[in-house]
Amino acid sequence: HSPSTAHQLIATAHALVHPRGRGIYATDETPDGIHARLAASAAPGQLKTFTDEEQTARRKAWRETLYSSLNPQHISGVILYAETLLQFQLAPVLIQRGIIPGVRADTDGYPLPGSPHGSGEVGTQGLDDLYDRCVAWREAGARFTKWRAPFLVNEAGTLPSPAAIEAQAGALARFASISQSAGLVPIVEPDLDFSGDASIQTSVDAHVKVISAIYAKLAIYGVLLEGTLLKPSFPQPGAKFAGPKPTPATIAAATVTVLARTVPPAVGGIVFLSGGLSDSDSTLYLDAVNKIVSAGPAKEPVAATAAEALANSKDVEAAVLRTMASRLPPLTFSFGRGLQGDAMIKWVAGDKEGAQQAFAKRAEECSKAATGTLH
Amino acid sequence: HSPSTAHQLIATAHALVHPRGRGIYATDETPDGIHARLAASAAPGQLKTFTDEEQTARRKAWRETLYSSLNPQHISGVILYAETLLQFQLAPVLIQRGIIPGVRADTDGYPLPGSPHGSGEVGTQGLDDLYDRCVAWREAGARFTKWRAPFLVNEAGTLPSPAAIEAQAGALARFASISQSAGLVPIVEPDLDFSGDASIQTSVDAHVKVISAIYAKLAIYGVLLEGTLLKPSFPQPGAKFAGPKPTPATIAAATVTVLARTVPPAVGGIVFLSGGLSDSDSTLYLDAVNKIVSAGPAKEPVAATAAEALANSKDVEAAVLRTMASRLPPLTFSFGRGLQGDAMIKWVAGDKEGAQQAFAKRAEECSKAATGTLH
Amino acid sequence: HSPSTAHQLIATAHALVHPRGRGIYATDETPDGIHARLAASAAPGQLKTFTDEEQTARRKAWRETLYSSLNPQHISGVILYAETLLQFQLAPVLIQRGIIPGVRADTDGYPLPGSPHGSGEVGTQGLDDLYDRCVAWREAGARFTKWRAPFLVNEAGTLPSPAAIEAQAGALARFASISQSAGLVPIVEPDLDFSGDASIQTSVDAHVKVISAIYAKLAIYGVLLEGTLLKPSFPQPGAKFAGPKPTPATIAAATVTVLARTVPPAVGGIVFLSGGLSDSDSTLYLDAVNKIVSAGPAKEPVAATAAEALANSKDVEAAVLRTMASRLPPLTFSFGRGLQGDAMIKWVAGDKEGAQQAFAKRAEECSKAATGTLH
Amino acid sequence: HSPSTAHQLIATAHALVHPRGRGIYATDETPDGIHARLAASAAPGQLKTFTDEEQTARRKAWRETLYSSLNPQHISGVILYAETLLQFQLAPVLIQRGIIPGVRADTDGYPLPGSPHGSGEVGTQGLDDLYDRCVAWREAGARFTKWRAPFLVNEAGTLPSPAAIEAQAGALARFASISQSAGLVPIVEPDLDFSGDASIQTSVDAHVKVISAIYAKLAIYGVLLEGTLLKPSFPQPGAKFAGPKPTPATIAAATVTVLARTVPPAVGGIVFLSGGLSDSDSTLYLDAVNKIVSAGPAKEPVAATAAEALANSKDVEAAVLRTMASRLPPLTFSFGRGLQGDAMIKWVAGDKEGAQQAFAKRAEECSKAATGTLH
Repeated sequence: HSPSTAHQLIATAHALVHPRGRGIYATDETPDGIHARLAASAAPGQLKTFTDEEQTARRKAWRETLYSSLNPQHISGVILYAETLLQFQLAPVLIQRGIIPGVRADTDGYPLPGSPHGSGEVGTQGLDDLYDRCVAWREAGARFTKWRAPFLVNEAGTLPSPAAIEAQAGALARFASISQSAGLVPIVEPDLDFSGDASIQTSVDAHVKVISAIYAKLAIYGVLLEGTLLKPSFPQPGAKFAGPKPTPATIAAATVTVLARTVPPAVGGIVFLSGGLSDSDSTLYLDAVNKIVSAGPAKEPVAATAAEALANSKDVEAAVLRTMASRLPPLTFSFGRGLQGDAMIKWVAGDKEGAQQAFAKRAEECSKAATGTLH
Repeated sequence: HSPSTAHQLIATAHALVHPRGRGIYATDETPDGIHARLAASAAPGQLKTFTDEEQTARRKAWRETLYSSLNPQHISGVILYAETLLQFQLAPVLIQRGIIPGVRADTDGYPLPGSPHGSGEVGTQGLDDLYDRCVAWREAGARFTKWRAPFLVNEAGTLPSPAAIEAQAGALARFASISQSAGLVPIVEPDLDFSGDASIQTSVDAHVKVISAIYAKLAIYGVLLEGTLLKPSFPQPGAKFAGPKPTPATIAAATVTVLARTVPPAVGGIVFLSGGLSDSDSTLYLDAVNKIVSAGPAKEPVAATAAEALANSKDVEAAVLRTMASRLPPLTFSFGRGLQGDAMIKWVAGDKEGAQQAFAKRAEECSKAATGTLH
Repeated sequence: HSPSTAHQLIATAHALVHPRGRGIYATDETPDGIHARLAASAAPGQLKTFTDEEQTARRKAWRETLYSSLNPQHISGVILYAETLLQFQLAPVLIQRGIIPGVRADTDGYPLPGSPHGSGEVGTQGLDDLYDRCVAWREAGARFTKWRAPFLVNEAGTLPSPAAIEAQAGALARFASISQSAGLVPIVEPDLDFSGDASIQTSVDAHVKVISAIYAKLAIYGVLLEGTLLKPSFPQPGAKFAGPKPTPATIAAATVTVLARTVPPAVGGIVFLSGGLSDSDSTLYLDAVNKIVSAGPAKEPVAATAAEALANSKDVEAAVLRTMASRLPPLTFSFGRGLQGDAMIKWVAGDKEGAQQAFAKRAEECSKAATGTLH
Repeated sequence: HSPSTAHQLIATAHALVHPRGRGIYATDETPDGIHARLAASAAPGQLKTFTDEEQTARRKAWRETLYSSLNPQHISGVILYAETLLQFQLAPVLIQRGIIPGVRADTDGYPLPGSPHGSGEVGTQGLDDLYDRCVAWREAGARFTKWRAPFLVNEAGTLPSPAAIEAQAGALARFASISQSAGLVPIVEPDLDFSGDASIQTSVDAHVKVISAIYAKLAIYGVLLEGTLLKPSFPQPGAKFAGPKPTPATIAAATVTVLARTVPPAVGGIVFLSGGLSDSDSTLYLDAVNKIVSAGPAKEPVAATAAEALANSKDVEAAVLRTMASRLPPLTFSFGRGLQGDAMIKWVAGDKEGAQQAFAKRAEECSKAATGTLH
């Protein structure tokens, strides 16, 4: 990178996660995705049919309603779908409010050959001509991009498969390098599924393996880590795992462990995804992680002797967690559904102002979670 | 690792670098190495010859003199040569003072086949039966080990060779896993030579490549990063590089960049080696690195827009350096010659107390450098 | 792969290179590429301008002329451009003659981010939605695909860059796995440039590094090697390398060495590319390689003692070359321009039959080269 | 390597496996190992106790008896234990008969840290000071070395572990490079255990993974493949796998598949180990593999169309197996116990000549198996 490009990338990445408590609003659903959600948010009597033109106008109006009321103290950036950026030209609405527009760069997935037969693993697509698209996005006001790479996990350890790790980590790295060469900060999103039978320990191991592989690939492509963000999932047991649901504190400990073992300190920031989690869980987990950060590092030796370490193993564990957490980049949110659910119900019912207030309330909660001060 | 072993490893690694300002005294020279230094420290008229028995007694006496006066506020641990640990049984002297004894685990190097012909690259040895030796060392009081892996660097980029990186990083990882399985914290020491023609940028690239390779190998062997320390060299231009000597601030910026791109936050601590540097340079570099740490992270966005980032590129650079440095594990010293040079001259002249005072003075300086408060 | 898909892939790959002496005719230039060649083949007075429609008709007619006269004793398969397969529907013309139609799968290159600044390295594109295209191609009669991955080489060893090897080998492997999952045999084409300053030894090293990387990636994706072909370049010095042009025998020895060190015996066959070589050179090199094959392996010990090996080093070298060559898959051609140059001149001049005869003559020469019986 | 060293290495590797039908006699048991076998070979009444001196004399006498009668038409080389080479000085006995002496280079294994807890995986040792030992061995007449790397395999796929593959393949590669630098041909021996519950398919997959990893490591160290041999195990189901024992033909097909997917054609030769197999099985498997080789490659297309390939899938399979097998280096034996069992019983009973005859008979059978002409 030329120094000037590097400085812009670094400054953008930094601004997306500072000061602590600001996060990203993800609005990169496909048009079909939005309409499905809008429909689901309608009260029984309110369901209508719309022409294509009306649908387009609705999508734009929905976005505009929220974009124009976002609070930059809670929201640092917004991920747009390309249409919102290029056709609706809504980036200026955000820029005016001091919020950074970004864009989703991946298109869609395809069944991954090389994956175990019938596994359901997919490969993410969208690399062809990506540089040209990045240039157009930047001209329309975008300053960052995002690429989601989903991974399956199972308890037997055969998923994610070596082919999936190779394909998805490789695609993320090529995406990141192309994005940076066009002056856009890449958000690298490994999304590990938790619908399966994996234990939390297996989930931790899979997260470590996947995130390590990603940073190894980024290094090969010479990606400037300071000008990137990571958008990870929380390690957690799968829905089919038999056993009690872990507490937010347990999830937070697993999350800190994963990140401390894998994320180079140069990375600009960490913005968690909420996919599949309830609004409540995603905020609780984020809050729990940041509570460890806020506790601060252990500055004195945690045990004078080996015997003392043995006797106080819980203290040692807590101390090392706090210490590791204190070294991580800012840990905040990049939520979509979880931020806008209540707002959508009001908007569909015609209550525009109520929608904005509902969003603002939820954004403030997420902001508190991003500083560990929710509860 | 069993949880109890893990807790001990973590607590030991933590105690070796906390609170900030404590560092490690490296006394792992071979007997021949000590005698050469003692001889070189003698005034012209003082040179004597000694019998083997007298030499042995001298080695022990020299060690005892300093060990018995070490200040645990400045010195957290001491690296012993196996003889000092097993034959002289000096670990208790240190333990009594609240200082942790460790031991050098590697034996010696051999010309590395697979390296470019005539390059001079070596492979470090000592893995055979290492576990058994570790067990004996632990019984004698040691709680950590150290393995030095030297690397050559040249401007053409052919050194370090792929064979050297594979061999040395592989050996470090096997050493670390064996050491931890015996309950000893491994200190992983990649020592990149600066006698060649490499520029500081080439040195930075080589450090990034080598340290990344090491952590990739450690992951394969399941090494618990929380229970390890890193002992790196400072990236710097080679002696044969034509150009002005960089300032400590430049060295410090390069050092922070290397470490932030490569060292997982889980690693317990970073203890620099001083090999080949003057006493003054090693302390100045360490101080400069810690001054960046002490400046604290940039908590606000460093630039509101891309244009601002361009206009204030120096501020952006400084801010990202401070931010990255704030995420690193404690950065302290693991010095040998640089700590004991003056003390040795006094001791050889028969001034035992003077030797202890000279050492104490130097240790205090290093401790200040480890908090960035030297100058 | 299901067993039935596997058997089809294996049988197709086998048929493309058996019996020895059959090779592939590459007709996968872009429409613009063809017209440029047709124009260049016209005599000074014959240059005309054509409407778009006429151009399309000309492309089709030119292909039809040659396809309808191909001799299956010399030509086992033809690589089509997608238009020829899907719009012109020319596959049946080939199938009727017992010749296997294939298709070019890559689209075009883009400057590779992560490559050293200004190096000119490119990444090959075309993976998005490739599976769907493969399915359409198969329905139109294609049984194999081809993906070209160009690489730059320089004497300093900085090219091909790690990013280029990662990107291009990775893309080849994904292409190959997708292609096989659609029932098409992938031809993997690493094309190492020789316009630079590299010596033949550097070219050999680069070929070894690139081809090894490709097979390592293919293994990760579970590609069935038995159902693939390799389309390599000949290792050779670059045009800017100062020194005499090597003899075909020297090129052949380098080629056998590269392939014997890198290509797993399971690979179906090796079909050389001729890009950038004169017609004469490409045929001479292929002939020289096959002459080593035809000499047969050394069946007796080549030296009874070390002293004998020293005294007869040339014999040892020759014996090991013959022995390695005898273990390689069939070595034949996948030529384009080199096969059709003379034919094109005749066809442009209106001599359809002459064009067919010119092609047939050249195909016979190539066939002889593929059995080492040209001279 | 200097050209002269390279020529010697190549010539030695070639002589160890040519002409087809010659193989290696492995006599590298430890002294304790020999005595245990000698004791087990004694008839009930013949058991005696011996002084240490008598034991040493016995070991030497036993070796001398067989070495002095070996038939160089069946035996190309013998692997000695270091004592036999250096103390008993028996290499000249072999050299005189035109048989090449070699030596075991590894010492012993240790439990591998980093392996799953309780797995029983070991790491092979012996790299420290190996170069110096190699030089001494060469002076005593040795021309090749051998290093055994055992691997465990289980059906769950957790064994061999990544740590085991990294450690064992890495050690093999360092061994091979050191050995070649001292002028000795390395025999690389990955020995995959079959006492577990793995199916033959899992065994095939594990063999492919391990052998690929080994050649990737050898490439990093610049090992000259032409001057090496591979000593692999036969892929086969574990003793605890429920299911019928596969036929030799099935084992042979699995073996050819593994080797064709992994072994670069440059490798000098393949000498199977027989560890754990009955005399009968090891010879039957070797014979079955060589019967495929002797059938010769399929020189004509195996199916004209995809439909034909489907209809004749068994023919396609047989053809591709024969074709792959024809490209492999010579496939012969490196047996120990299996060659000498009968001879030992006679020798212990005092029948020296009978011992020699029993050995000769068995060596002839193995030689026949190495040409596929046993049955």
